Amino acid sequence: METKTMNIKVEKAKTSKIDQVDFENLSFGTVFTDHMLICRYKKGSWKVPEIIPYQPLTLDPSAKIFHYGQSIFEGMKAYKDDNDDVWLFRPLDNCRRLNISAKRMAIPELPEEYFMDGLIALLKLEKDWIPKTPGSSLYIRPFIFASGTGFHASPADEYTFIIAFAPSGAYFSGKVKVLIEEKYSRSANGGVGFAKAGGNYAGQFYPTQLAIEKGYNQVIWTDDNTHEFIEEAGAMNIFVRINDTLITAPTSDRILDGITRKSILDIAKDEGITVEVRKITVSEIVEAAKDGSLKEMFGAGTAAVISPIAAFGFRDVDYDLPQLSHSYASLLKKRITDIQYNRAEDKFGWRFKV
Amino acid sequence: METKTMNIKVEKAKTSKIDQVDFENLSFGTVFTDHMLICRYKKGSWKVPEIIPYQPLTLDPSAKIFHYGQSIFEGMKAYKDDNDDVWLFRPLDNCRRLNISAKRMAIPELPEEYFMDGLIALLKLEKDWIPKTPGSSLYIRPFIFASGTGFHASPADEYTFIIAFAPSGAYFSGKVKVLIEEKYSRSANGGVGFAKAGGNYAGQFYPTQLAIEKGYNQVIWTDDNTHEFIEEAGAMNIFVRINDTLITAPTSDRILDGITRKSILDIAKDEGITVEVRKITVSEIVEAAKDGSLKEMFGAGTAAVISPIAAFGFRDVDYDLPQLSHSYASLLKKRITDIQYNRAEDKFGWRFKV
Repeated sequence: METKTMNIKVEKAKTSKIDQVDFENLSFGTVFTDHMLICRYKKGSWKVPEIIPYQPLTLDPSAKIFHYGQSIFEGMKAYKDDNDDVWLFRPLDNCRRLNISAKRMAIPELPEEYFMDGLIALLKLEKDWIPKTPGSSLYIRPFIFASGTGFHASPADEYTFIIAFAPSGAYFSGKVKVLIEEKYSRSANGGVGFAKAGGNYAGQFYPTQLAIEKGYNQVIWTDDNTHEFIEEAGAMNIFVRINDTLITAPTSDRILDGITRKSILDIAKDEGITVEVRKITVSEIVEAAKDGSLKEMFGAGTAAVISPIAAFGFRDVDYDLPQLSHSYASLLKKRITDIQYNRAEDKFGWRFKV
Repeated sequence: METKTMNIKVEKAKTSKIDQVDFENLSFGTVFTDHMLICRYKKGSWKVPEIIPYQPLTLDPSAKIFHYGQSIFEGMKAYKDDNDDVWLFRPLDNCRRLNISAKRMAIPELPEEYFMDGLIALLKLEKDWIPKTPGSSLYIRPFIFASGTGFHASPADEYTFIIAFAPSGAYFSGKVKVLIEEKYSRSANGGVGFAKAGGNYAGQFYPTQLAIEKGYNQVIWTDDNTHEFIEEAGAMNIFVRINDTLITAPTSDRILDGITRKSILDIAKDEGITVEVRKITVSEIVEAAKDGSLKEMFGAGTAAVISPIAAFGFRDVDYDLPQLSHSYASLLKKRITDIQYNRAEDKFGWRFKV
């Protein structure tokens, strides 16, 4: 489908940086395109978004983002097919999730057309920045932060919504080794774990650093009360394959409702794979690893797509996962990326032409 | 005690805003002094702090503060006595707690002398901004945020430390009505609740807004697992007086180790008040309110000092607290503010002359 979009004012950059970029050797999220979308909330309403050259932001030192972490974001990607047509994947789901996060963080909800039409206008302008190198993509970062000022610990009266683009390589390089965490936690019952709130990420940095020092790439979080149940990996939801059943934890107010996660569930069912959405205990995974019924674990998320887990650590023991020649991870990754890059039929109606 | 301080470069503001400020009608944290201290972490170390005119900050849109909430802060006050001498209250405790927060949020720890000497130099320069109106004070806001760039969800490589001053009126006006919260939570076991991390505050805004809509000023948080135990009020630790015993919850990884809280405990013991630091159940408070043994509840924190609670709500019932002519709250508030304003002996060694 293609849609009519609202008229968005564009201030063009005087020069382009695109010739300075090595598209064959992109890291993740360190190079930004020439323009960004900006939209401000003032005096009780969101103003019409504009496209301006990518540029520094100027903020008062008392802006609440610096003090109270009032910010939310989304992660998306744009894909270019062999005809140089540009596609998004379930973009309205990101828009709606941004507003779910907004509500929980006391940030005013953004009109959907500002998000969608702003994103489309910016993508049309920055089309040449979408990498075609396999494994690379244009990472899209919509975010809202509290730009209103004052030291009182209460919601800001002004907010800034920005969409910025970063042509990016893979989020993880190679297979991932994860640590099942029992001391530190990511989120509380009744907390903000289901929201893509900035503070959810900063809180993971230190425990993740400790895990990295021990040779792991990521932490798998468990519930903060008993540490018996697998939750998510912070940047990814987690899938476990025991024998031929694919299992993932149900979403809750502690777990992000991942768009890759729910797409994987639908594709797996379509493939005839037995799928269970239920609580997964750590002891169940450890037992399955010991008796050989644990066939696969993988993470699923926009940045990482599907990231196979090579091994997990628990209580100072590492458990290697088997190397399968026909894994669910590779099958599901092929199915989802074929839809995303317009290489296969889109029976679910997820693809969105820009 | 008075100390020698390091030599800090000062760039003076060309003009002062002080004449535009109505010191008789200050709100909390909305007016800022002429200068601020700034100190940057780059290439693996904190650079020497400088004092510059209070001014906007310029940041790349990919600065990690906007995306991942990697920020921490402190709250302090400066007091002026009748001789116009300037005092701080236990400032090294704030400095050390900032570094405890820093560690948990994967922020590089700040040298203590940069904090202390920077603060003292800035206070000497801004001395005229310290209000002498009763109930007003110079609120001090030290904070650190991730100024390094990039969309990868990992700690920044650059940070900015700032101290800014706001001559301020009372945080709360009048007595406070609080709601004991059973659905939403502030922090998780193994989380970041003990740190003064930005995201801890944003997560409280929405539930607090809901409470405000019901006629309350603040939320009293309970543990996220059972909601049976009182934790803290977000901007204040909570004290409960049952009969003549003063009770507060023990600190934990979910509760801030408040400097006002621990000072109140010491002063109360010095007054011969029976003090208990132990878990407090909601049902215990409700029963005590019903049988008349609940004499007082109050919050304690730097911004709010001691804030008497007039009533609490629980499961749609409001419980009024008695109006005592000789409350612990007023006794303890007098004792602590007399020390802070150099009106009484400081037997604990808490006062610090600038």
